[in-house]
Amino acid sequence: MAKVFYGTIIHSVSVSEIEFISNGLLFVDAQGRVAKLLRNVPQDQLQDGLAGIDLAVAELTVLEDNQFIIPGFVDTHIHASQYSYCGNGHDIPLLEWLDSLTFPHEAKFKDSHYARNIYTRAVARSLRNGTTSACWFATIHLDATKELVRAIHEQGQRAFVGKVNMNQNAPDILIETTESSIADTRAFVEYVNSFNTQLMQDQASDQRSKPLVTPIITPRFAISCTSDLLRGLGKLAAEFDIPIQSHLCENTNEIEFTMSSFPDSTSYTAVYADHGLLTQRSIMAHCVHMKDDEWTLMKDSHAGISHCPSSNFNIKSGMADVRRMIDMDLKVGLGTDVAGGYSCSILDAIRCSRICSIARNPTRSLLIPELFYMATMGGARVMELGDTIGNFNVGMEFDAILVNIAVKGSPIDVFAHDTVQTKFEKYLFVGDDRNNAKVYIQGKEVKLS
Amino acid sequence: MAKVFYGTIIHSVSVSEIEFISNGLLFVDAQGRVAKLLRNVPQDQLQDGLAGIDLAVAELTVLEDNQFIIPGFVDTHIHASQYSYCGNGHDIPLLEWLDSLTFPHEAKFKDSHYARNIYTRAVARSLRNGTTSACWFATIHLDATKELVRAIHEQGQRAFVGKVNMNQNAPDILIETTESSIADTRAFVEYVNSFNTQLMQDQASDQRSKPLVTPIITPRFAISCTSDLLRGLGKLAAEFDIPIQSHLCENTNEIEFTMSSFPDSTSYTAVYADHGLLTQRSIMAHCVHMKDDEWTLMKDSHAGISHCPSSNFNIKSGMADVRRMIDMDLKVGLGTDVAGGYSCSILDAIRCSRICSIARNPTRSLLIPELFYMATMGGARVMELGDTIGNFNVGMEFDAILVNIAVKGSPIDVFAHDTVQTKFEKYLFVGDDRNNAKVYIQGKEVKLS
Ligand SMILES: [Zn+2]
Ligand SMILES: [Zn+2]
Repeated sequence: MAKVFYGTIIHSVSVSEIEFISNGLLFVDAQGRVAKLLRNVPQDQLQDGLAGIDLAVAELTVLEDNQFIIPGFVDTHIHASQYSYCGNGHDIPLLEWLDSLTFPHEAKFKDSHYARNIYTRAVARSLRNGTTSACWFATIHLDATKELVRAIHEQGQRAFVGKVNMNQNAPDILIETTESSIADTRAFVEYVNSFNTQLMQDQASDQRSKPLVTPIITPRFAISCTSDLLRGLGKLAAEFDIPIQSHLCENTNEIEFTMSSFPDSTSYTAVYADHGLLTQRSIMAHCVHMKDDEWTLMKDSHAGISHCPSSNFNIKSGMADVRRMIDMDLKVGLGTDVAGGYSCSILDAIRCSRICSIARNPTRSLLIPELFYMATMGGARVMELGDTIGNFNVGMEFDAILVNIAVKGSPIDVFAHDTVQTKFEKYLFVGDDRNNAKVYIQGKEVKLS
Repeated sequence: MAKVFYGTIIHSVSVSEIEFISNGLLFVDAQGRVAKLLRNVPQDQLQDGLAGIDLAVAELTVLEDNQFIIPGFVDTHIHASQYSYCGNGHDIPLLEWLDSLTFPHEAKFKDSHYARNIYTRAVARSLRNGTTSACWFATIHLDATKELVRAIHEQGQRAFVGKVNMNQNAPDILIETTESSIADTRAFVEYVNSFNTQLMQDQASDQRSKPLVTPIITPRFAISCTSDLLRGLGKLAAEFDIPIQSHLCENTNEIEFTMSSFPDSTSYTAVYADHGLLTQRSIMAHCVHMKDDEWTLMKDSHAGISHCPSSNFNIKSGMADVRRMIDMDLKVGLGTDVAGGYSCSILDAIRCSRICSIARNPTRSLLIPELFYMATMGGARVMELGDTIGNFNVGMEFDAILVNIAVKGSPIDVFAHDTVQTKFEKYLFVGDDRNNAKVYIQGKEVKLS
C-alpha cells in the first residue's frame, strides 16, 4: 500500500547540509519508493497537495508537533554473534577479551539453534534502535549464518550478511581448511541468491521490489586468513559481483603482525588490494592507523570505511581521523562494532564519533551535519547503496524512522522555546530507541519488539 | 517504616573494589539508616536471617534474578536553569553558546513561575536517572532559587542548592551589585535554614532525620565576581559553615582571563584560596588545566573535584587527568554539568569518563571499580557526605537504586550465560533510566515520573 506523510521531514542533502522541511508532503509508492516530496505545504492547502492521490489506496499519516521523519540509520559494521555480551569485559585487555569472551562465544555458533536465539535478538535490538540497514558479521559456521539471514528476513531489515572466514591464527575449534572455507562461502552466497530468487518469484509481478539481504564476502581480517584463502575470496567476490567487508588498521599490534605475515605487500591496505579484496564494494572497519599511501589506495579503489568510535575507545585501538576521510571525500559511515562497541545504537555512534573528533582535534571536530550524514547517506554510500537509500530524494527507497520526541516515557523534555532544530538536536544527543516510534524499510513498517 | 531487602547488593568498598553481595540481607531502619547487612544468606535460611525482625513493621522486598541494589548516584555538578536546552547548541563555540543560549535563558529566571516549571522537570529527570544526591547551580535570582529548593524538597532528592553570584563580566540583566549579591545569598541561606528548622519541628521526634537540602555558596566562577564579592562569599561560607561550589580551570582562555583579573593570586586555584573559598567543603568543577602547585593546593585544602567529562568534550575544554586525581587521593566525583553536558545521567558520565581516560592515556585508563566509585562513594566524599551516603555500610543512610535489567522495554538483553557481574556491567554500559525501577533516598522510595 502506498503511504503519504505530512509534517516535518529532516534529511541530509550533502555531507555539510541537513535540510529541515516544514510542512513536507512525502509520497511513498506501493513498491516503497519516494514518488514525490513537496515542501512547505500549508496545513490549509493539504487537500490541494494531496490532489491526485487516492486515499483509498494510500495511507495518510499527519505528524504531530513533536514528531518528524528522518532516514533510517545505517550500521556499516556489527558482529551478530557478539551481541549477547554487549557491554561486557571492558576492563580486560584485547587479546584476553578475544580469548575469554569472543572465541568461546563464537564457537557456540556451531549449534544453529543457539545461533537462532542470539541472532533474532541482535537483529531486533538493531531495528529497535532505528538501524534500517546493517552490515553483519556472523561466524565461520554456514548453518548458523543461514539462520542470521532468516532472522533478518523475518524482521525485515536491509542487510549485508557475511559468513566469516578464518583458516589460521584462531583457536582450533574456529579454524576452517582453505577448501572448506571457500566451499562454505560459495554455498552461503548461493543460498542467499536462491533465497532471493524464490522471494522474487513469490511476489506479484506488480509489487516486486529488490530483495533486502545481500551476501558479503567476510574474511575476519588479513591475519586470520592465508594468502590463498584471501585470493580465493577475492575471486568469489568478483565471480558473484558482491560486496566485501573486513577489518583494517585497527590497532598497532595487529598491523605489525599483518605486515610480518604478508611480507610481499607494502601495507596492510595493500594486502587486501593484492588479493582482489579492495574494490568499490569493500567496507573496511576502523582505519585508525593508516599511512599516506594507504589513504591513497582507499581513495583510488573507491573502497568505503566503517568508522566505529565506541569500539575504538573500548578496545583502546586509537582514534580514527574522520576529518581527513571527509576532506579526501572518502566514503565513510558509522558502525557500532558490537560487541567491541557496547551499544547497538547509531545515535550512540554519532555521540562517540563527535567525542572522538573533539579528542583528536577540537578545532576541526565533526559538526552535526557531518555526523548525521555519516549515520545515513554516508553509510548508504559505503554500502554502495547511495542511489537507493540515505535520504528522501525522489526515487529513493523509503527507509525511515518516525521520531517522536514526546513519546510516553521519553528521555527528552520538550519546552515552549524548542524549535524543529533544537528538537532534532535533542533527539541526536538525548534521545534513544524509545523515540523511534515507527521504523520503515522499503516503504513497509517493520515490527519493533 | 523499616525496610528489608533480600537479594544481590552491589556497592563500592574502596576506589579499587566493588563488592558483589549474593543473597544479601539489608535492613533499613525507620530513620532510613542501614541497620544491618548480612552476606550470603541462603534462600532456605531467609527466615533465620529475618529473626528478630517484625515484618508487621518492616516491608520485605525479595529481589528477582535480574534485579540488584546499588547506591544512588551522586551528581556533583549540574545547572538546573540550563536543563531546558540540554543537547542543544553543540556546534556553536563556547562564548557564542553562553551569549545565545545560556545568558538569555538564565535571564528568564527572574520569573519564578517560569523557573518553577523548568526546575521541577530538571529535578524529576535527575531523579529518574538515579541521582539521589545533586549539587545544583540555580541562577542569580533569589526567588527562583527558592523555587528550586521547593521543587527538590517536594520530590525528595538530597541536594546542595546554590544561588549564583555574578557582579561582573556578564550581560547587564544578569549582573548584581556586590551588596545585593551578598544580601540575597545571606537571605537564601537563611531561607533554607529556616525551611529545614520548620521541617524538623514538623517531624515526630522519634522519626526525625536530617534535612536533605543544604544551601551552598556558588560564585559562578572567579571572573564573574569581583574580589570583594568573593571575599564576602568566603565569609558567608565560614559564618554558616556551609559548602562552596564553583568552576575551576575549565579552559585555557578562562584561565588567562582569570589570571589577568586577579594579578595578586599565583594561580586560578589560589584565587579561590585567597578569598576563603577553597576549603574541605569546596566542590570545584572541571580542573582540566591545573599546574603542579594547584594540585598541591587542592590536596592541602582537602577540596573536592567534580569531573564533568561530557561537558569537557562538548565545550571542547580539554580532558581532565582523573588518573592523577586518584593517584593523589584527591576527592573526585562525577558531574553531568547539564547543559554543557547533554545528559542528566551519571551512567552517561561514567561512560564519558571512561572514554576521556582512554583518550588521554589508554595504558592507565579508569577501571570499572574506579568509575563506579566516583559515581557513588567518590561523589559522596566530594560533598563531604562520605560518612552518610555512598555505600551500604552499617550506619549509612539508605540512598539506593533498585535496578531491574529485565524491566519491560529494557535496553538490555539478558542471556543464559550472564552472571551477576556481566549483568552489572551491562547496566553500566547499556542500561538507562528504564532500568532504575525504584529509587530510595534516606530510606524512602521517591516517586519517579
Ligand atoms: Zn569488528
Ligand atoms: Zn558548570
